[in-house]
Amino acid sequence: VFDLLSPARAWCQAAAQKLPGGIGSKLCGRLVLEKTAPIYLLPALDGDLKTMTFLQEVVDILLAYITESFDRETKVIDFHYPNELLQRNNWELQDEPETLDDILISCRATLKYAIKTAHPRYFNQLSTGLDMVGLAADWLTSTANTNMFTYEVAPVFVLLEYVTLKKMREIIGWEDGRGDGIFSPGGAISNMYAMLLARFKMFPEVKEKGMSSVPRLAAFTSEHSHFSIKKGAAALGIGTESVICIKADESGKMIPADLERKILEAKQKGFVPFFVSATAGTTVYGAFDPLIAISDICKKYQVWFHVDGAWGGSLIMSRMHKWKLDGVERSVLKLTWNPHKMMAVPLQCSALLVREEGLMQNCNQMHACYLFQQDKHYDLSYDTGDKALQCGRHVDIFKLWLMWRAKGTIGFEAQIDKCLELSEYLYNKIKDREGYEMVFNGKPQHTNVCFWYLPPGMRYMEDKEEKKKRLHKPQTPHVCPHHVSFTRNKMAVL
Amino acid sequence: VFDLLSPARAWCQAAAQKLPGGIGSKLCGRLVLEKTAPIYLLPALDGDLKTMTFLQEVVDILLAYITESFDRETKVIDFHYPNELLQRNNWELQDEPETLDDILISCRATLKYAIKTAHPRYFNQLSTGLDMVGLAADWLTSTANTNMFTYEVAPVFVLLEYVTLKKMREIIGWEDGRGDGIFSPGGAISNMYAMLLARFKMFPEVKEKGMSSVPRLAAFTSEHSHFSIKKGAAALGIGTESVICIKADESGKMIPADLERKILEAKQKGFVPFFVSATAGTTVYGAFDPLIAISDICKKYQVWFHVDGAWGGSLIMSRMHKWKLDGVERSVLKLTWNPHKMMAVPLQCSALLVREEGLMQNCNQMHACYLFQQDKHYDLSYDTGDKALQCGRHVDIFKLWLMWRAKGTIGFEAQIDKCLELSEYLYNKIKDREGYEMVFNGKPQHTNVCFWYLPPGMRYMEDKEEKKKRLHKPQTPHVCPHHVSFTRNKMAVL
Repeated sequence: VFDLLSPARAWCQAAAQKLPGGIGSKLCGRLVLEKTAPIYLLPALDGDLKTMTFLQEVVDILLAYITESFDRETKVIDFHYPNELLQRNNWELQDEPETLDDILISCRATLKYAIKTAHPRYFNQLSTGLDMVGLAADWLTSTANTNMFTYEVAPVFVLLEYVTLKKMREIIGWEDGRGDGIFSPGGAISNMYAMLLARFKMFPEVKEKGMSSVPRLAAFTSEHSHFSIKKGAAALGIGTESVICIKADESGKMIPADLERKILEAKQKGFVPFFVSATAGTTVYGAFDPLIAISDICKKYQVWFHVDGAWGGSLIMSRMHKWKLDGVERSVLKLTWNPHKMMAVPLQCSALLVREEGLMQNCNQMHACYLFQQDKHYDLSYDTGDKALQCGRHVDIFKLWLMWRAKGTIGFEAQIDKCLELSEYLYNKIKDREGYEMVFNGKPQHTNVCFWYLPPGMRYMEDKEEKKKRLHKPQTPHVCPHHVSFTRNKMAVL
Repeated sequence: VFDLLSPARAWCQAAAQKLPGGIGSKLCGRLVLEKTAPIYLLPALDGDLKTMTFLQEVVDILLAYITESFDRETKVIDFHYPNELLQRNNWELQDEPETLDDILISCRATLKYAIKTAHPRYFNQLSTGLDMVGLAADWLTSTANTNMFTYEVAPVFVLLEYVTLKKMREIIGWEDGRGDGIFSPGGAISNMYAMLLARFKMFPEVKEKGMSSVPRLAAFTSEHSHFSIKKGAAALGIGTESVICIKADESGKMIPADLERKILEAKQKGFVPFFVSATAGTTVYGAFDPLIAISDICKKYQVWFHVDGAWGGSLIMSRMHKWKLDGVERSVLKLTWNPHKMMAVPLQCSALLVREEGLMQNCNQMHACYLFQQDKHYDLSYDTGDKALQCGRHVDIFKLWLMWRAKGTIGFEAQIDKCLELSEYLYNKIKDREGYEMVFNGKPQHTNVCFWYLPPGMRYMEDKEEKKKRLHKPQTPHVCPHHVSFTRNKMAVL
């Protein structure tokens, strides 16, 4: 049985011996006498009541914040510039502990200046609203406070990841849902994994010998693709110059003929084409690359075909819109699919789905014997840690799984369909409206509606280049290509 | 104003048109009539009460779980093998939504089979107990549900990261706390960043041109270092064979003379030594490499010096134990320091501290113009996204910051000192005990206490090789080098 003040006492004894002039014992006096925060909470003996009261007070603050966030009459943000915000509150870290009351004040201050991402009038990249079942699931995840590296420390969560990834693979259309996959900390890392796996698949010796054992590689992706493809190439030692940008058409889709031309060009220059990343739902236009045509080219030239569906992958859950992803089942290797975007799962939740079983394991395993003992008494394929780039891995699965249970597949479908319906509604409202101009013609394929607002003086300018130049200059904050994404039934007010 | 049933209705209209034989309208009937989970919660109009009731019910489940977790008379885990656990509950994802009552049942089932990581008798790698202020902070983080990539979507959290990283750099001893850093998803990724930065610092052209523009590199780390160094080298295209293992002494510390010898050897073979990763607190032994001697060698041969303090870095907060990290302030580039380990911050929370300002930005930036506009009206150094490998980045800072406020620096110090005191207590209990044998002689430097349990038949075996062989065979589950780590005042019962 340990003493509830023992950490403080231990420190005091040490401090008293080491610090000159009695400072040690003065500090100790304060530490022991004041009812400071952590000492009286669990795991202190008799800490139950105090802990429950404290946690309940925090929950009350959070519930009030949630109610306020959904009230469209409140401000989305009480915005201050960084230096101003630094001065508006005491954010500093001190030597001395604070009281529990101070901690509650800090929680309130943090939320006061936070942006209400659940607010009906909040629009930003990756905005997803705040799903209540997802939030509850995230609270549970924090409380369970574990790690995905082995089955023994996360039995349920590892199983739920297994069940969910299998379901996702079935939806893609891979036979019997077979394959592999992992939840990773975001789409950028998922895309990096994809490139890593493609390189390993083609040149397995790269794991031991590095890039010096490999010819110069070339990867291909559309000029509208996400910057993480280049970032990944830089990190993996492939180099950004080896990422060859394929032209997109007016609506933002990769042009297959240009892909074929550039693959041939690269081969002529002595590069080995190893990876094509098609995008299902580009970041700005929301365009879907023509996956079938691209996969045919990949097959012809034996290049690994990856689909970055971080943004648009979720449309596969909609019977009405899944045709936009036709061909995704041909992705020979893998697919990035971020439920934290279109499916409104709390941040963060990004899946990488891999067709070939065992590939991730072979590519990333290091056989750390202190962690992945081979003599455990259960099926070791549930120890997912060695196939990841991470060692410890946050539990990102439970919020998606619980939301899926709550909505059912048809609930996600209804939500996705509704968002696409709203974006078409917005498109129809804007396209012939005085003072607005669409960035490209044609109905949006995803929930991105891209338009320019033209200030009165620019509406009838003839010189297109000059007009474009002036539009790119900020007039009022953020008069730049507007990019409005609907998730969770939001309605823009023009 | 939107209709609370509109997602369901939208789906119904579509389904009725597309599905044959009235199935669509049958499904719709059920969807609209049943009081299914997400439809009546916020953001539905009048969803407030139902939402608050639901969230409070979840919180009640969590509070009961917390109380139970701290009760040492309860079981740490209700363990079942994977296939058995799959059958004990219905974990499947269905087309149809569940009711809110079902969702609460799922939450209870998940916790029933989870491992109680807060339990006083729970020991495992990375075990940290469950800090109540950290937990409260994590609940708040989930509720704020945002992303660290720009100041505009996470103003407070970005500032708190800034404040905390500066404080950590001050504690290391870097002048005025200057430098840079980031919170990343775990120590393995932090170590990968470190290697990436070292390579870029020495050969900036690698970003564009890849490894083919760079001579063959060599990295050095002790044979006891964490596997993430090799994993990182494999991913970055350097190759695991370019990671040269330096011998450790009997207590697990890197031998500087061997480092110097191997650097010279590598140079003779035409490799360019670019990176030394010293470990402050090895995974199994808890050993601290001699940082001063290593940094002298790094300086002599102009190799970048990184300290992997994922496990032991936190000892720098203890006036009694910080000498073990003497020399860490010389780490020219960077330090990995995981507060989610020794400081018991909820998972996950890993800091990478970088000495040179601007280096991370130059190494990783891709200038995505849709996200990191250069014409924003605030100091753009607060847009941290472009220096990260990730695009979206989970908010890992708030739990550390709030715990630091609650405990003060002296609270963390007291906690760390207490844990080290307990491990010394355990060491003294075991070292001369019948049937036990220490894995190495000497007091533990960190909280790792490594020992063998010798079954009666093996206690007086003369043949050391034979004895070792037999010890490595599992007799009962996990008779292997025991590795007991104390965090949060736990006491092992022998």
